[in-house]
Amino acid sequence: MSSQIEIQRIEKSKIASVDFNNLPFGSVYSDHMLECNFKNGAWQTPVIKPFSPISLDPSSKIFHYGQSIFEGMKAYKDAENNTLLFRPLDNWKRLNKSAERLMIPQIPEEIFMEGLKALLKVDNDWIPTNEGSSLYIRPFMFATGSGFHASPANEYKFIIATAPSGAYFAGKVKVLIEEKYARAANGGVGYAKAGGNYAAQFYPTQLAMDKGYNQVIWTDDNTHQFIEEAGAMNIFIRINDTLITSPTSDRILDGITRKSILQIAEDAGIQTEVRKISVGEVVEAAKNGNLKEMFGAGTAAVISPIAGFGYQENDYELPVLENSFAAQLKKKITDIQTNKVADPYGWRIFV
Amino acid sequence: MSSQIEIQRIEKSKIASVDFNNLPFGSVYSDHMLECNFKNGAWQTPVIKPFSPISLDPSSKIFHYGQSIFEGMKAYKDAENNTLLFRPLDNWKRLNKSAERLMIPQIPEEIFMEGLKALLKVDNDWIPTNEGSSLYIRPFMFATGSGFHASPANEYKFIIATAPSGAYFAGKVKVLIEEKYARAANGGVGYAKAGGNYAAQFYPTQLAMDKGYNQVIWTDDNTHQFIEEAGAMNIFIRINDTLITSPTSDRILDGITRKSILQIAEDAGIQTEVRKISVGEVVEAAKNGNLKEMFGAGTAAVISPIAGFGYQENDYELPVLENSFAAQLKKKITDIQTNKVADPYGWRIFV
Repeated sequence: MSSQIEIQRIEKSKIASVDFNNLPFGSVYSDHMLECNFKNGAWQTPVIKPFSPISLDPSSKIFHYGQSIFEGMKAYKDAENNTLLFRPLDNWKRLNKSAERLMIPQIPEEIFMEGLKALLKVDNDWIPTNEGSSLYIRPFMFATGSGFHASPANEYKFIIATAPSGAYFAGKVKVLIEEKYARAANGGVGYAKAGGNYAAQFYPTQLAMDKGYNQVIWTDDNTHQFIEEAGAMNIFIRINDTLITSPTSDRILDGITRKSILQIAEDAGIQTEVRKISVGEVVEAAKNGNLKEMFGAGTAAVISPIAGFGYQENDYELPVLENSFAAQLKKKITDIQTNKVADPYGWRIFV
Repeated sequence: MSSQIEIQRIEKSKIASVDFNNLPFGSVYSDHMLECNFKNGAWQTPVIKPFSPISLDPSSKIFHYGQSIFEGMKAYKDAENNTLLFRPLDNWKRLNKSAERLMIPQIPEEIFMEGLKALLKVDNDWIPTNEGSSLYIRPFMFATGSGFHASPANEYKFIIATAPSGAYFAGKVKVLIEEKYARAANGGVGYAKAGGNYAAQFYPTQLAMDKGYNQVIWTDDNTHQFIEEAGAMNIFIRINDTLITSPTSDRILDGITRKSILQIAEDAGIQTEVRKISVGEVVEAAKNGNLKEMFGAGTAAVISPIAGFGYQENDYELPVLENSFAAQLKKKITDIQTNKVADPYGWRIFV
């Protein structure tokens, strides 16, 4: 397979213009990208080429019907300058789960994995080595086929682009538990990493930001009584010494960081519960002092501690703990990701 | 305003290659399109230019976060070769309602209306004159600004493209009342013409097609007990001599054809009811012979009679009526649209 990837190298690298000590998140792009087109019912030869504009007909269905999905991954360097990926096959599987729901063709494992590894080799110098930074990897697929008719396209593009990145959120976040808007319907596409799921969150998130919050914690669309996820992160809640997270469903993303955290926590002897959590339970625990921690978990943010939350016009602050679960778990998962400790799970893959 | 539209004419028209007697729906494009870019916080000068590919950075948010909305409209020719639009300001208002929900900048009335009129003048010869055909008009807006960060873009494109088109559906359609999947969440974006709403329907629609149906009739995501809409059409149900349609909500599109049909029906002395309709009521009416008609209403399909529906593994056929409401109402609305009868409502606008 890897011999079937066509490589077109950039004439002059842009890397000298990048300040690796002050990296933003996901807005500086590496020299190359992988591109693979689907047409006539088949994926064509993948090409690694300079990161460069895409030309699309105005009638391409991506502009009209939202047939787009993506993944978020990271590549890390260990102390020996090895390149590491974290559970990449899980991203590939989830991308295809999203693809199925959005009627986008399945991408073969070889194109995804061999294409990604070849791209990381070509752009090896773009993988940050400094603490807390990583190469953010964005595989995505979208409809290029044309027509003003609401039906699946017959042509698609699969692209992997990368961006050396610093932290997603700076510092602790303050969240608002949503009472009116919703992210996902029962029987909808909430579990998929579909583009439309994100645009749908911007307006309610802006309303929350206007009130001084950084993010929204979504609740179920029917009762708004149960915690779902935070859009770019799954949510963990620690009540006394139990770490709780909502079960995945057709409304909640099956986060790779989420399931890794659950595994690490269990093996560290932390009591975990995967069950529905009502907003009432969280508010009650906050009031009686049993609510110890809340944090988001996702590839981009890894673990993002929550400083406090708003609900029904009230604000609740969370205590500042020594040796929090969030800090312990974040250290453990990033140590595994960057090859600082043993990986008993077989999660990391050397490129 | 119209003097501020820049016009770049095509060198050689493609019109001679088009068979206007055998037009598909929305897949043959006129010579020109209107394009207007939003950047630095403002809409730039609109340009009418040849219908041609758009070049976008791979990091453009349209590919990742589904910030895209659209409208569907039609232009008609009357017997005197005048060009007519139908309630175009309602499309402009709805586009901005969608824009607000998707955090896309509002498009000013002048750019939308003057741009559209100027485009129709430049491509006047592309407006079909034969019965049942029209120029389908597709205004759309999407995020061009870049970044792998789930937040609204800072740059957008507004485009109007047109396609001389025949009928959307050929003949009567058979629909499946959905029991598992859902189109929209309470507090979601179902009322907006957001791209992501359409891709989300493709998979359940394909499952319905595999069973021999043409379309899905969506039900509420919580109980699946109430009729919502059909994705590309609102739904009307005639029980005995009463014409019923669901109220609009944050899950159901405020269809321009829907509200026009309601007005025309009322003025024709047809009893109408805008209220929740349970699936049980429809099935019961089908069983006891009181269900006379069902039809979809939307810009693309105008009125699309439904031949029968499936629900819980049973199929229900609808009777074939002389002088159906669907036929009466379709004739009336298309006669108004094409200037064959008086327009007491002030709905049509001469270009």
